[in-house]
Amino acid sequence: MRYGGYNAGTFLPRATSMPTQQTPSWLDAVTWNADGLVTAIAQDHKTGRVLMVAWMNHEALAQTAQRGEAVYWSRSRQKLWHKGEESGHVQAVHEIRLDCDADVIVLQVEQRGGIACHTGRASCFYRVLKDGEWQVVDTVLKDPAQIYGA
Amino acid sequence: MRYGGYNAGTFLPRATSMPTQQTPSWLDAVTWNADGLVTAIAQDHKTGRVLMVAWMNHEALAQTAQRGEAVYWSRSRQKLWHKGEESGHVQAVHEIRLDCDADVIVLQVEQRGGIACHTGRASCFYRVLKDGEWQVVDTVLKDPAQIYGA
Repeated sequence: MRYGGYNAGTFLPRATSMPTQQTPSWLDAVTWNADGLVTAIAQDHKTGRVLMVAWMNHEALAQTAQRGEAVYWSRSRQKLWHKGEESGHVQAVHEIRLDCDADVIVLQVEQRGGIACHTGRASCFYRVLKDGEWQVVDTVLKDPAQIYGA
Repeated sequence: MRYGGYNAGTFLPRATSMPTQQTPSWLDAVTWNADGLVTAIAQDHKTGRVLMVAWMNHEALAQTAQRGEAVYWSRSRQKLWHKGEESGHVQAVHEIRLDCDADVIVLQVEQRGGIACHTGRASCFYRVLKDGEWQVVDTVLKDPAQIYGA
């Protein structure tokens, strides 16, 4: 851990303090965009490497805090996406941060399987700009056909 | 440096190989959104800390690669924003990465002055979710009135 203390389950108050299903004020403090989404960055909690960027809606962020595992909103599938539900590459969430204008979340995560990208790489950011080209600098750790089933 | 070699000026090929003003293909490889923008994450090249998230249009990304300093697109002001132009808090860019679906950029930067946030903090991500609240955990390093002039 680098940026704060991690204790599983400390994102939310004890259930006894939330007797009703009212929206918690911390969710209302988020600046949702016109589509009701915020940008969510998943960063490896040990190395600091940015693994992926996705979207969260209200429910995705609520579930992320509740489960302690990253849940995103898939814009292409228009449904909640519990990361790793197919691949097993779940992201255990150690910390949740919000930026100054409240429209971006950073998650400190522990990436199960060490693969965040659907291409089978550790991170989605595997291309570097060099000499006027995007050069692939990270290797495929596992064939996507094996990850998702052929 | 953590994720790749840094040599100033290696983002782009030598000028002699670009005799005309054609759009370089690396810029065309980016998936611009409906507003012609991509999300850009600035990360401290030494600590890995995510400092801020902003937007870039075509010109902002081209200038970032050309100058070796972060240039964003300010949606509120609708103009190019050479980060640090007012505050002096320029971001020297050591590396530029693109993600798998080509719509997010990660910059490895050296943050001049050690302050990325307009609130005078090191990072815009100074609030942590704990016990159902966004708790401010980072201090103001410099009064914004001093940074931007009263």
